[in-house]
Amino acid sequence: MRFPKGFAGGATKAGLKASGKPDLGVVVSDRPCVAAGLFTKNKFSGSNIPFCRRALKEGGIRAVVMHAGQANACTGREGLEVARQTAIAVSGSVGCGYNEVIVGSTGVIGVLPKLNKIQNGIRAIAEKGLTPDGILAAGEAMMTTDTVPKTASARFRLGGKMVTMVGIAKGSGMIHPNMATMLSYVFTDARISKSALRMAFRDAVEGSFNCLSVDGDTSTSDMAVVLANGAAGNREVKPQGKDYTAFRKKLTEVCTDLSRKIARDGEGATKLVTVRVRRASTFDDARRVAKAVANSNLVKTAIFGRDPNWGRIACAVGYSGARFTPDNVMIRLGKTLIFAKGKSAEYNQGLMSKYLKDTDEVLLEISLGSGRAEAIVSTCDLSYDYVRINAEYTT
Amino acid sequence: MRFPKGFAGGATKAGLKASGKPDLGVVVSDRPCVAAGLFTKNKFSGSNIPFCRRALKEGGIRAVVMHAGQANACTGREGLEVARQTAIAVSGSVGCGYNEVIVGSTGVIGVLPKLNKIQNGIRAIAEKGLTPDGILAAGEAMMTTDTVPKTASARFRLGGKMVTMVGIAKGSGMIHPNMATMLSYVFTDARISKSALRMAFRDAVEGSFNCLSVDGDTSTSDMAVVLANGAAGNREVKPQGKDYTAFRKKLTEVCTDLSRKIARDGEGATKLVTVRVRRASTFDDARRVAKAVANSNLVKTAIFGRDPNWGRIACAVGYSGARFTPDNVMIRLGKTLIFAKGKSAEYNQGLMSKYLKDTDEVLLEISLGSGRAEAIVSTCDLSYDYVRINAEYTT
Repeated sequence: MRFPKGFAGGATKAGLKASGKPDLGVVVSDRPCVAAGLFTKNKFSGSNIPFCRRALKEGGIRAVVMHAGQANACTGREGLEVARQTAIAVSGSVGCGYNEVIVGSTGVIGVLPKLNKIQNGIRAIAEKGLTPDGILAAGEAMMTTDTVPKTASARFRLGGKMVTMVGIAKGSGMIHPNMATMLSYVFTDARISKSALRMAFRDAVEGSFNCLSVDGDTSTSDMAVVLANGAAGNREVKPQGKDYTAFRKKLTEVCTDLSRKIARDGEGATKLVTVRVRRASTFDDARRVAKAVANSNLVKTAIFGRDPNWGRIACAVGYSGARFTPDNVMIRLGKTLIFAKGKSAEYNQGLMSKYLKDTDEVLLEISLGSGRAEAIVSTCDLSYDYVRINAEYTT
Repeated sequence: MRFPKGFAGGATKAGLKASGKPDLGVVVSDRPCVAAGLFTKNKFSGSNIPFCRRALKEGGIRAVVMHAGQANACTGREGLEVARQTAIAVSGSVGCGYNEVIVGSTGVIGVLPKLNKIQNGIRAIAEKGLTPDGILAAGEAMMTTDTVPKTASARFRLGGKMVTMVGIAKGSGMIHPNMATMLSYVFTDARISKSALRMAFRDAVEGSFNCLSVDGDTSTSDMAVVLANGAAGNREVKPQGKDYTAFRKKLTEVCTDLSRKIARDGEGATKLVTVRVRRASTFDDARRVAKAVANSNLVKTAIFGRDPNWGRIACAVGYSGARFTPDNVMIRLGKTLIFAKGKSAEYNQGLMSKYLKDTDEVLLEISLGSGRAEAIVSTCDLSYDYVRINAEYTT
């Protein structure tokens, strides 16, 4: 993987995770970045969230620090202070303002992370030295119930220069749009104006992270942040024109790639499930149907059981609240029509079970027959392991 | 159990269930009943639903027939004809109009029940003869993944006479308010006007069946119907006054009892979970919070794991969409305060784990500190067995 110019990262074992695995990471830019971020809408937001919102409002960002083990959410005044002191520790080692640092936290809700462990860890990372591929190490350090790290990248010409973009993300449970329990960071050396970056990121997130669901639970600590440091030297991307379009497209691809990887690694998942809703009256209707299907425990257990149970899909479409005429609805599993005109289509059930058994990525396509809007939601199946992981994951 | 005068029922093995268990039931009143019913809001409603709506609109009801195995939902024109012919078969054996029959169906969506089996079964039930306690047999015949039949009853003085009320219900999965995959019938010999019965039933259902969730999936086939045949000879209950209040209270108790039994027998459930939300600004806000918590897979798996994980409860409260000030929220597990002022309260975690281990009925109480409204939602935990049942239950 090629890394964006001017960014470097590192990680360490700070002793926050009971497992003793790496649990603290830092990514630093050698110059101030234009940045945009979107945060959880949960009313019990993490103690680090208001801190990050303020930092993004105030100006340029130099660094991101992420720690895993304790989410630092529902931790009261002490939690706010831990977030602030974490940023101060990074600012000391980087040599920037503490309000130029984004702090990401994930783990158990309601437990205060030990500040001195974080401070010692940040020192240890600085002493070891940061490297470009340390960005990936930072991505691994923020894993919780994730089984694999999630990364995505793009490299493309923009405004006369080669531009690089690398994204890292974590998230496996408590995953639901607006946002997921998800920390997601995209680093790019593109030069872009703040308003252009914000617009492009809002668009990219709407169609990617906000179309993602593992278990329907919107976490307290979600964030998606993009940093652009301009080191590629391209002419600055403005909020319109072909540079903007090209940048937004690549940013959307990177975010979509990350969000699909999160769904694929959903807690206990054995399949990536893509729910595509077509021919809806509006995007909202399309997404409402796609989310109802993606969030249905009955649909998800049927897929885990390799059972082409379109009745459960139709049922979820029916209670989604979207507008449509039932007789116009068509449901496809993979490329095969299995439901049309209000009842079962003629299809080979054995072949469908085999499709569910063999494919790694299940495609459910629902056509509402009432318009031209479309939405795609990524999710996963619901297995014994989901229950095991969440019944045993302890407070 | 005492049965309401003038009602009798019966059941048989019609061969609709693969298991060979009883799968067809009939309950008949010896005189026309005043009736009220509430049906699923799912847009893919069962083929029997429009038939029942019409029957209730037209006038008196004499009988209810219920069959299990195939839901007769998403079965097209043939499905409508099966529902109509089922009612005709009952009308023939009872000697009433076919539009005086309520038809309830439950089972796999999208599979047409075999009409000749239903017709033969209805004949067999009539030949065997109906009895008061045959009402319970009919209740057992409609079970699908239910592990126990659900009944509730009340006996009370009303307008100078003793009145009896018996309810039967089924429902275990695809259970969510508005309505649940639930068939629920209440039979009473009270004399009551149609408008009074409708008002009382709407109220009773709102606080019982519509405050019930097993898995968040609203089925295609839900119905709750009450029949009152007047055989008790009390003075007619009108839509107000103390007779009305007494009747509504008992009807609500019977419906609440049934709905709690449905939650307790939720697919794979090891615990009944009661989520009580107090001090909300409005009933809608209270119910929104209670449902968000009751529908959270993470809360439900934590309870299955006997883990007093209040972070997941707070998280669900936070994304519910209700209005409240986070610092005012208090969460109790049983009688113990575990969360207040935005963070963990001082409590003994070992005692809480023990409470979750020992109690059969878990009480979660959430005070929003913003008003005087209250709602109670019944649900259950999420276990390995939920996944097993729904991954293996086949189309």
